[in-house]
Amino acid sequence: MGRQIDLSGAEIRADPGDGSPPIFLPRQPAASPLLALDIGGTLIKLVYTASCGGEEELRFAKFERRRLDDCFDFVRAQGLLGCNGTTTGSSKENMTLKATGGGSYKFGDDFRQKLGVSLDKLDEMDSVVSGANFLLQNVPGAAFTHMSGKRNSIDISPDNLFPYLLVNIGSGVSILKVTGNRKFERVTGTHIGGGTMFGLAKLLTGCKSYDEFLQLSQKGDNFVLDLVVKDICGELACQKQGLSTSTLASSFGKVITSMKKLADYKPEDLASALLSAFTYNIAQISFLVASLLGLRRVFFGGSYIRGHKSTMDNISYALDFWSESQMQASFLQHEGYLGALGALMSYGDPRDENLNLEESQEENSHEAAGPTDVTSADEHNDSNIFPYLLVNIGSGVSMIEVSQHTAFILFIICALALLSAKNNLVR
Amino acid sequence: MGRQIDLSGAEIRADPGDGSPPIFLPRQPAASPLLALDIGGTLIKLVYTASCGGEEELRFAKFERRRLDDCFDFVRAQGLLGCNGTTTGSSKENMTLKATGGGSYKFGDDFRQKLGVSLDKLDEMDSVVSGANFLLQNVPGAAFTHMSGKRNSIDISPDNLFPYLLVNIGSGVSILKVTGNRKFERVTGTHIGGGTMFGLAKLLTGCKSYDEFLQLSQKGDNFVLDLVVKDICGELACQKQGLSTSTLASSFGKVITSMKKLADYKPEDLASALLSAFTYNIAQISFLVASLLGLRRVFFGGSYIRGHKSTMDNISYALDFWSESQMQASFLQHEGYLGALGALMSYGDPRDENLNLEESQEENSHEAAGPTDVTSADEHNDSNIFPYLLVNIGSGVSMIEVSQHTAFILFIICALALLSAKNNLVR
Repeated sequence: MGRQIDLSGAEIRADPGDGSPPIFLPRQPAASPLLALDIGGTLIKLVYTASCGGEEELRFAKFERRRLDDCFDFVRAQGLLGCNGTTTGSSKENMTLKATGGGSYKFGDDFRQKLGVSLDKLDEMDSVVSGANFLLQNVPGAAFTHMSGKRNSIDISPDNLFPYLLVNIGSGVSILKVTGNRKFERVTGTHIGGGTMFGLAKLLTGCKSYDEFLQLSQKGDNFVLDLVVKDICGELACQKQGLSTSTLASSFGKVITSMKKLADYKPEDLASALLSAFTYNIAQISFLVASLLGLRRVFFGGSYIRGHKSTMDNISYALDFWSESQMQASFLQHEGYLGALGALMSYGDPRDENLNLEESQEENSHEAAGPTDVTSADEHNDSNIFPYLLVNIGSGVSMIEVSQHTAFILFIICALALLSAKNNLVR
Repeated sequence: MGRQIDLSGAEIRADPGDGSPPIFLPRQPAASPLLALDIGGTLIKLVYTASCGGEEELRFAKFERRRLDDCFDFVRAQGLLGCNGTTTGSSKENMTLKATGGGSYKFGDDFRQKLGVSLDKLDEMDSVVSGANFLLQNVPGAAFTHMSGKRNSIDISPDNLFPYLLVNIGSGVSILKVTGNRKFERVTGTHIGGGTMFGLAKLLTGCKSYDEFLQLSQKGDNFVLDLVVKDICGELACQKQGLSTSTLASSFGKVITSMKKLADYKPEDLASALLSAFTYNIAQISFLVASLLGLRRVFFGGSYIRGHKSTMDNISYALDFWSESQMQASFLQHEGYLGALGALMSYGDPRDENLNLEESQEENSHEAAGPTDVTSADEHNDSNIFPYLLVNIGSGVSMIEVSQHTAFILFIICALALLSAKNNLVR
């Protein structure tokens, strides 16, 4: 049993819109820092406590996953391993850090070898939901809408919060129905997420970072590449028929009939077309899922939003459009740190002491198809309405589900089918 | 009132899988040919009657839209203007051809100047549905399933055909709920369609044609670019957790952390990743829409399927997967000619004599907000459950809807919002 963290009375004191500002924790006693990590497909996100003018606060930092050593340097330089986390003995060898995201599996050995700490691996979706619920229930001003360039803070009464749809845009996209604290279903997701946007952006524009891609998109015109109605029927005929000439018809569709090569297009226009294509797609899928579930409030999180105005405007516009203003897109100021926040909150949580993945996996492995004692983490699987293994589940993966027999069978079927699909492609 | 066409007893005699083979029309009297066109965002599709061994048959041809002159040469060389279509006088000047697709507006003048014929413009979605219903109700073997490389013809009793979902993959994608002959709703669509796939393929691989893109994709491996679960959590950890290591996580997601540039990737692998990303996306959106509408049978049509095995396998696999085998993807052998077939069928149809767009537009323009006498073409607007102006409406546009006041207002709102969205991007 390790140290607990007191998150009550949490408060953002920075001006709205300043990235992911510190969150003050007025009732957290000053002590050596706590650190939690979310190691995703692209980024490592860190949340840690630090002292500032006699008060404790949560701070946020991120690193590209391929720059793991920078992350280690940062952790050492900030003294974040002072007397961190849950220790089962006095030596640093037994120190554990709460961590989530698929990378917490892949890089566990690196943390052990280079920092001398173990990672206590937590279910990613469980962490993401805990982080989102913490922000929405405890931090005034953490959520906002962003429409046509205008940002408006929203404060939601906890009585009125649930249920909501949480769309977490990582390398892929996870879509969760959240019905309460630690109560959620991962209903579906899509393989076309931030990784697709940034991956294609790197190939098409040569940009080096996602921020560079977003900056490029601000200066571009997607209609240089996108096929709109007037390109199909002609401007005069459109006007004669009363059609909007600029209605988006097919993203990148204008390329088909053009003699231009890639080098003839401006990187800015390419970036703008990518951003439109994929933000609208994510919003459309979110709208369809929310419609199926009868939900009207949709929160978008994940590192790929990054407080970027056009990203949020596109998503908000599309969701408002599709739903005829019956649904509202909302965003979270610390959108990229939901998983890491959830992991941090688990320090000292007695439920989590029984919930780290290796333990629950071990417990379940003896009776994979039967009922288990570990209910709190598994209960969110009970009413999944979609199978969800084709697509990404966030930038990492939610692994605890697989301890259920049915999920395991689905994974096998999926693997075989994907291999078969791949063979067909290669044939 | 022009010539009619007798489509009863229609029959495909070629082996299954041979592109779009002729359809024999045993009861159609030998006469000068009939020709109808569907001028889409990328292709011009032609359906025409011709004599073969004393019997009449439907033949199919297509041209890239930018090669309009090739199309004109073909029409002249085949003598397709012999004494075609509905004539209102004896001179060729008054000859009209049935045509649909957005391009029938844009290129009307070209047809008049170069072929000396007028185009009688028909609503595209109305034509697509008529073409699909004709094939499904009158042509044995026209529909089939394609799963894991295996093609199986399906014959559907007309009693059991409706309702079904029709997903028409053009430059964009239209999704229609068809409830009977000439009875349908255009429920939604997506701007990520064949134009997006081919547009990005041209930019990324330099391929010159969509067929070349499809051939490239056959030889490629999408997992060179796509992020799968094992890339996130590590192979050993995945296996330890019982996770399928090859589950698709994020299309193009592997590019993010790679040092490779575009030139370092094989065109084949790029094509394969594009095909996976977008066929799965179309299937997922189709699944969500079918779920919302409670439909289990989904037909996929449109020129971008092109009888391509992996395209059909991907769509079938994904729809089966998402729906847990509750829905089935079906395809049509003449998938690219639905609109042109529907236009051809309208020759001599008394309903269509009152239904060509210019006439109905004129009738409605006097009383745009009120009821009109033209009900058969407008009735499919009554129960649209989604707004549908953000995304493409096939490779062309369905224009008759705009004569309704509400639709017109929606178009205006959409135009303003899109302009606003565009301004935000440029800002």
